[in-house]
Amino acid sequence: MEFIIDNKCFNKAISDVNKAVSLKTPFPILSGIKITANNNCIILVGSNSDIVIEKVIPLTIDGVKVLEVYHEGSVVISAKHLSEIVKKLPDKIHIKVSEKQLVTIQSDEIVTKVYGFNAEEYPSLPQIEEVKFIKIPSVELIDIIKQTVFAVSKSESKPVLTGVNMSFKDNHLSCVATNSHRLALRELAVESNVSGSFIVPSTSLNELIKLIDKETGVIHIFVTDSYIVFKSNTSSLFSRLIDGNYPNISGLLPNDSKTIITLNTNQLLKGIDRACLFASEWKNNNVHLEIKNDTKIRISSNSSEIGKIEETQNIKMINGETNLSISIDGSFLMDALKVIKEEEIRISFGGSMRPVLIEPIDNSSYLHLISPVRSY
Amino acid sequence: MEFIIDNKCFNKAISDVNKAVSLKTPFPILSGIKITANNNCIILVGSNSDIVIEKVIPLTIDGVKVLEVYHEGSVVISAKHLSEIVKKLPDKIHIKVSEKQLVTIQSDEIVTKVYGFNAEEYPSLPQIEEVKFIKIPSVELIDIIKQTVFAVSKSESKPVLTGVNMSFKDNHLSCVATNSHRLALRELAVESNVSGSFIVPSTSLNELIKLIDKETGVIHIFVTDSYIVFKSNTSSLFSRLIDGNYPNISGLLPNDSKTIITLNTNQLLKGIDRACLFASEWKNNNVHLEIKNDTKIRISSNSSEIGKIEETQNIKMINGETNLSISIDGSFLMDALKVIKEEEIRISFGGSMRPVLIEPIDNSSYLHLISPVRSY
Repeated sequence: MEFIIDNKCFNKAISDVNKAVSLKTPFPILSGIKITANNNCIILVGSNSDIVIEKVIPLTIDGVKVLEVYHEGSVVISAKHLSEIVKKLPDKIHIKVSEKQLVTIQSDEIVTKVYGFNAEEYPSLPQIEEVKFIKIPSVELIDIIKQTVFAVSKSESKPVLTGVNMSFKDNHLSCVATNSHRLALRELAVESNVSGSFIVPSTSLNELIKLIDKETGVIHIFVTDSYIVFKSNTSSLFSRLIDGNYPNISGLLPNDSKTIITLNTNQLLKGIDRACLFASEWKNNNVHLEIKNDTKIRISSNSSEIGKIEETQNIKMINGETNLSISIDGSFLMDALKVIKEEEIRISFGGSMRPVLIEPIDNSSYLHLISPVRSY
Repeated sequence: MEFIIDNKCFNKAISDVNKAVSLKTPFPILSGIKITANNNCIILVGSNSDIVIEKVIPLTIDGVKVLEVYHEGSVVISAKHLSEIVKKLPDKIHIKVSEKQLVTIQSDEIVTKVYGFNAEEYPSLPQIEEVKFIKIPSVELIDIIKQTVFAVSKSESKPVLTGVNMSFKDNHLSCVATNSHRLALRELAVESNVSGSFIVPSTSLNELIKLIDKETGVIHIFVTDSYIVFKSNTSSLFSRLIDGNYPNISGLLPNDSKTIITLNTNQLLKGIDRACLFASEWKNNNVHLEIKNDTKIRISSNSSEIGKIEETQNIKMINGETNLSISIDGSFLMDALKVIKEEEIRISFGGSMRPVLIEPIDNSSYLHLISPVRSY
């Protein structure tokens, strides 16, 4: 194997696949990046037990020549050493592998030699069946993930809740995440001939967001019983799926409410953020919301040791009872408010022990549910 | 005590004095910031067992009114809570203290109440005798500290070596730091009527750099037997001194050399940085330098497990023997090269086991010494 490659472009690809590589693997070869040189591209692969990331570097990018392949072949190089070395090389990088897997990495007058692994020992990727797939613009996929993934459970006690449930049906995608105390739901029209529900680990989705962050094209999604593949022009991410049945959420969504108010999203976010200063030292991030009349909501929290904070904000609109008092986990409310892009939100209260429903105004494609906490 | 203050300006001052406040003090009052309101300014003080930082906020800054004092007085408020609250307040901040030390912090419709401490219990600052002092432009003081402080010992086994030795004599300041394996020396003409040597803890100097980073004026330095004070227009830092006798370094500076070479500073820094990639996994960051003829120096390192790296760089000028081979701690050499602003350096070698002398070309005010390591 022998090729010369632009150092910036190589660097970026290494850093992308490196995100999948775990340092703690018991198999030395899996701590490496597999590089395969074909006559028209090189392919980098990094993996751990949950995900595989694959990057393709073509001969030219935007009309600029970035790669010249002299001999096809493949090798596996320690991800840590490869990324550290390549980061510090000033110019085009010349890579050449001897028959004994000794890799020479040269740039200008700098010559590095590292021992590689035989690429044949690297596990092969699952085959993708390319007939059934979902097509979705990458910016929309990133949005839908960001708006739900934060709500998954951090505890492994119910594994299905550590993933986002992606359901496809009739060109329609719905994503749900919940930790039993709060829930985020987002729906979207997509181009799809797939139907079914798949629980994708939140860690994989967080890596996916970073991987396709700068991409502007379309992502193709392929699914089998055990894994899901997200594929753009130059990047692919394979993720395992989580086994099990995701809870049915349709019964959780409240269908009546005592009080509905409209508030400014960003102003409420800042107010809750301030109230959390005292709430987090107390317990459960308890923040108290109180409506006394039809124009003002009072946000407060207090800690017997430190002191207390309170402020009032204007209610833009109110329907129903104008007398309400509820305690809620301030950090859950902040998480939900942070991913709402609309300027105003509607909050529906069903009573002091019923879940609070938060929806953006003028956008029915997503909602958040938060269970109140008992206040002492 | 009662005043109204611009939130940005208050925030900055709190964050500055907060750097001196330790969370781990056994005295609750020392985890606080002391605020004193006089009729023409407020003064903030934070401290730990090593340093005290004092900031003064006047009524106006650059002609803009930032402070209005209604009632003089003082209080101590938990540094952690004060800084967190003030960071999140949107507008001018109104502070009012009741007789029972209950502090009300108000901004717009946001009202926070925290319990304060009685300021009379806060220890008083040492008195400065303002007759003898040193005057030095803050940018030059920052330079001289940055060019020496990195070389102090990180080990507490010889406490005097954990500080920078500042010697004043006849309008002349010399700063020395060493950990016995490498040494940094910097000299500077200053305005001073002080003579004597003082060992200042490196931690205090690192805080000082952050504190006066944006200042453009002159720093006054006052010294007593047990502490040193750095004072600008609005900030003061009091630091304890380290007791003991600093080693005499005059005998350490080499006065003959076998080979003297001139190299490009930045290029050498990058080369050593690359060589350290392999050296750091081995031991002692051993980097090997080798001169074989009068035009090239070879920089290399190798690790039997990973591989090796080598490169050659051009020698700009050479005097003496053109045959030399030496091993050196690459991270020490990098530290020295990083603080040299001149484009070229002169390196003098006295032999494979004699200290290496590194000096900038065209600037005799500073030098670095590094002991070589045995290579196996």
